[in-house]
Amino acid sequence: MSPLAVRNPYDNADDDDSHHGEGGGPDRPLLTEIDHIAIAVHDLGDAIDTYRETFGAVVEHREVVESDGVEEALLRVAESYVQLLTPTRDDSPVAKYLERKGEGIHHVAYRVDDCAEALAAVKAQGHPVIDDAPRPGSRGTTVAFVHPRAICGTLIELVQE
Amino acid sequence: MSPLAVRNPYDNADDDDSHHGEGGGPDRPLLTEIDHIAIAVHDLGDAIDTYRETFGAVVEHREVVESDGVEEALLRVAESYVQLLTPTRDDSPVAKYLERKGEGIHHVAYRVDDCAEALAAVKAQGHPVIDDAPRPGSRGTTVAFVHPRAICGTLIELVQE
Repeated sequence: MSPLAVRNPYDNADDDDSHHGEGGGPDRPLLTEIDHIAIAVHDLGDAIDTYRETFGAVVEHREVVESDGVEEALLRVAESYVQLLTPTRDDSPVAKYLERKGEGIHHVAYRVDDCAEALAAVKAQGHPVIDDAPRPGSRGTTVAFVHPRAICGTLIELVQE
Repeated sequence: MSPLAVRNPYDNADDDDSHHGEGGGPDRPLLTEIDHIAIAVHDLGDAIDTYRETFGAVVEHREVVESDGVEEALLRVAESYVQLLTPTRDDSPVAKYLERKGEGIHHVAYRVDDCAEALAAVKAQGHPVIDDAPRPGSRGTTVAFVHPRAICGTLIELVQE
């Protein structure tokens, strides 16, 4: 069997493959879970109260991440988290986000088996990244951020537990 | 035992309960899963290609929702979805979102056991809603949207499968 005859099992069923070219993606799904959605808020205590009082959601983990200038609270939802995020200093990217856009969804984090592998897959497609190499995240994870210009205007974090 | 002595098991561990009052939230978590994150995109085919070529993610379901003026593609990630969302007409709310903000994360959808119950919990806290009652969503779900003014600037959809 010619390698050219092997159809990528993750290709979509539509017939218009004209712009897909060879090597149409990884040969298995790299995203194993929505790790968290991060919501930028002005007051972490108020946001935690709102999620508890409205939805009965409670904090499983809380951490200050000095390197990013944020304090986060993780509310568990099944195997994922809602991450409430507030700046700890004025020059934090989250402070600038709040100033520019107000409270709202800041980024989505996808859980991956291997952060370096997923980051390499992003770069292999020519997408701009924020972190050129994986680095420590909160709660002992290894993370890398992809630039929002890269994929549908979305700030994406890749999280390896 | 006096009912007043019953501590809500979903209360946080901190001691500052001064502004929590009675009935500090539902007596069980209402959010059972991140159902999906919705990403507004200009071109659904291009966005699908990007997710496949970069992450090996593929379309599990595709649907035009005439009432909302959108076409959506659902990419499965564990028990959740990435919902790529594009307008089908110029007066669609997603068309206006794209015009105003460009591509990006449009809303987060939480899966709930009972959409009416979750919507009632939102209203009971005095939060403004977009849908006053549950209505049909895509793929046979029952849904209701909460106004982004309500909870941390986030457009929230409640999804009952």
